[in-house]
Amino acid sequence: MQNILVTGGAGFIGNHLCEELLKLGHKVLVYDNLSLGTNRNIARFKTDTNFSFVKGELLDSDEFENIFVSNKFDMIFHLAANSDIASSSKSPQVDLLNTFNTTIAVLEKARIHNIKKIFFCSTGAIYGDTNLAVNENSGPLIPISHYGAAKLASEGYLSAYSHNYGIQVWIARFPNVVGEYATHGAIYDFIRKLRNNPMELEVLGNGQQIKPYIYVKELVNAILFIWNNSNDEFNVYNIGVDSRTRVSEIAEMVVSSMNLNSPIKYGESNRGWVGDVSEFKYDATKLKTLGWSPSLSSNEAVKKAIEEILIEQNTPELL
Amino acid sequence: MQNILVTGGAGFIGNHLCEELLKLGHKVLVYDNLSLGTNRNIARFKTDTNFSFVKGELLDSDEFENIFVSNKFDMIFHLAANSDIASSSKSPQVDLLNTFNTTIAVLEKARIHNIKKIFFCSTGAIYGDTNLAVNENSGPLIPISHYGAAKLASEGYLSAYSHNYGIQVWIARFPNVVGEYATHGAIYDFIRKLRNNPMELEVLGNGQQIKPYIYVKELVNAILFIWNNSNDEFNVYNIGVDSRTRVSEIAEMVVSSMNLNSPIKYGESNRGWVGDVSEFKYDATKLKTLGWSPSLSSNEAVKKAIEEILIEQNTPELL
Repeated sequence: MQNILVTGGAGFIGNHLCEELLKLGHKVLVYDNLSLGTNRNIARFKTDTNFSFVKGELLDSDEFENIFVSNKFDMIFHLAANSDIASSSKSPQVDLLNTFNTTIAVLEKARIHNIKKIFFCSTGAIYGDTNLAVNENSGPLIPISHYGAAKLASEGYLSAYSHNYGIQVWIARFPNVVGEYATHGAIYDFIRKLRNNPMELEVLGNGQQIKPYIYVKELVNAILFIWNNSNDEFNVYNIGVDSRTRVSEIAEMVVSSMNLNSPIKYGESNRGWVGDVSEFKYDATKLKTLGWSPSLSSNEAVKKAIEEILIEQNTPELL
Repeated sequence: MQNILVTGGAGFIGNHLCEELLKLGHKVLVYDNLSLGTNRNIARFKTDTNFSFVKGELLDSDEFENIFVSNKFDMIFHLAANSDIASSSKSPQVDLLNTFNTTIAVLEKARIHNIKKIFFCSTGAIYGDTNLAVNENSGPLIPISHYGAAKLASEGYLSAYSHNYGIQVWIARFPNVVGEYATHGAIYDFIRKLRNNPMELEVLGNGQQIKPYIYVKELVNAILFIWNNSNDEFNVYNIGVDSRTRVSEIAEMVVSSMNLNSPIKYGESNRGWVGDVSEFKYDATKLKTLGWSPSLSSNEAVKKAIEEILIEQNTPELL
């Protein structure tokens, strides 16, 4: 049993991770400001004596300090970040504060409180606008979004802190993640738009963007696998899915799953927003070699996520 | 003629760059807080009507804003940074503030004031602890110093700003730079130590660290060459020297140049300090292909720098 801090644990991916950590018998404290995370996401853990929740800001150093007074953590899973990439294109401040500065806040507490293990959730966006199958040693790293820049900046600092203070670090670079409790993303947006206006679905960009999608519970499974099976001082893994899904396919699947016939109206650009990488693929050989592969294809992950989000939204007591 | 802002222009490399920019007929404004830079470094430009100097902090947004009220810059050379890597290992804050946050400050002013060209001075330290000949596409980027982390973080943000706001960016990754007006570094330290105590020279680390050294005026020449000859939206170059010099050779050259016989006392570690990369080499094929190579070898650069610094320190009116 380990004493684990999960920053952003009330968020989309965070709550699924907490569920698995609790199942494994760990003690879990979630620190989250509930700006993107929700009380609903963690409500199901509240009767578990191994679980506790503290609402607070990572960037308020004194507030954040409080949880270290009464807890001696063995490990931090640092998931807190801005996760709404499309909205982050509107202001460079969002990711600077919520994605990068939050990482520095976590690293500083780890340094000061002598916490020697950090798992960091990174992203394929650090590779930038490339359609090559990138692996963990690929360069150059030239992100085109503020989100990608903030995650790359975070990785750089994790590397330096690891070396300077003997902190063991795991970095997992995620593809697009879908599933229950999502708070943003194409599927979530399309369903919301069609609920508002079933007569037409407007899609950002020309719908030809093609990316790998992973089902959230498989992603969490991969996170735990990497944590348990890779034991270098500094560990970096792409979490990949070999197949990919076009945005137009997602739009069609959503319309069909909602039993609608709505015409789909596409934009002109090959990007959904400034900073959107329109074609992306991972080389996930390193993780496969370690022993993990997803069981769902990208299309299967998208389909499962659509079904779950529709059920979730049709069940008011879940919202 | 361009209207150019040089941040850190009173520093070691900055003043040599200003000299060349002024020779080319450009208008140059140096913004520097004189924390590492000096009035002496820019004194020789003060009669040039194309030159102006404003003492100020990059991190004081209002103070920094003032220079944009009365100047319409075409171009920014952003050199301001902590440059004392050895001392930066003592606190992660030094480079976070002075190397990374200063870059964000410059990028924000460029965005707000619509300045579409930035030249950024980066470092081989972003590649981390590798003895492979790294090129511009090499990965992974796993810096082991706070300095390297802050420069990598800066590069990530330059990439995102370039894409989001149409800013043309040049990034040059430097090797070790030596020459007149240096404010730190092995040569500078060894001379200072021998002046204090000519009976012995104590060297940080075992002296076996081996790195490429470039003479500062050649570096500035390369900077201008890259700026003039590479015209992509986002340009990245290693500035390399094929040969390398061992720290023990530098120590011996300094002792001999000072006409001393001081015994040299080495430490145990293969690093001079935490975060020191003990063996480093660049693959500078990209810059060679563009048409530039240094004329001095690494040893020649070191020798020339020793001579210049000794003359400089023996000429009190220069100090």
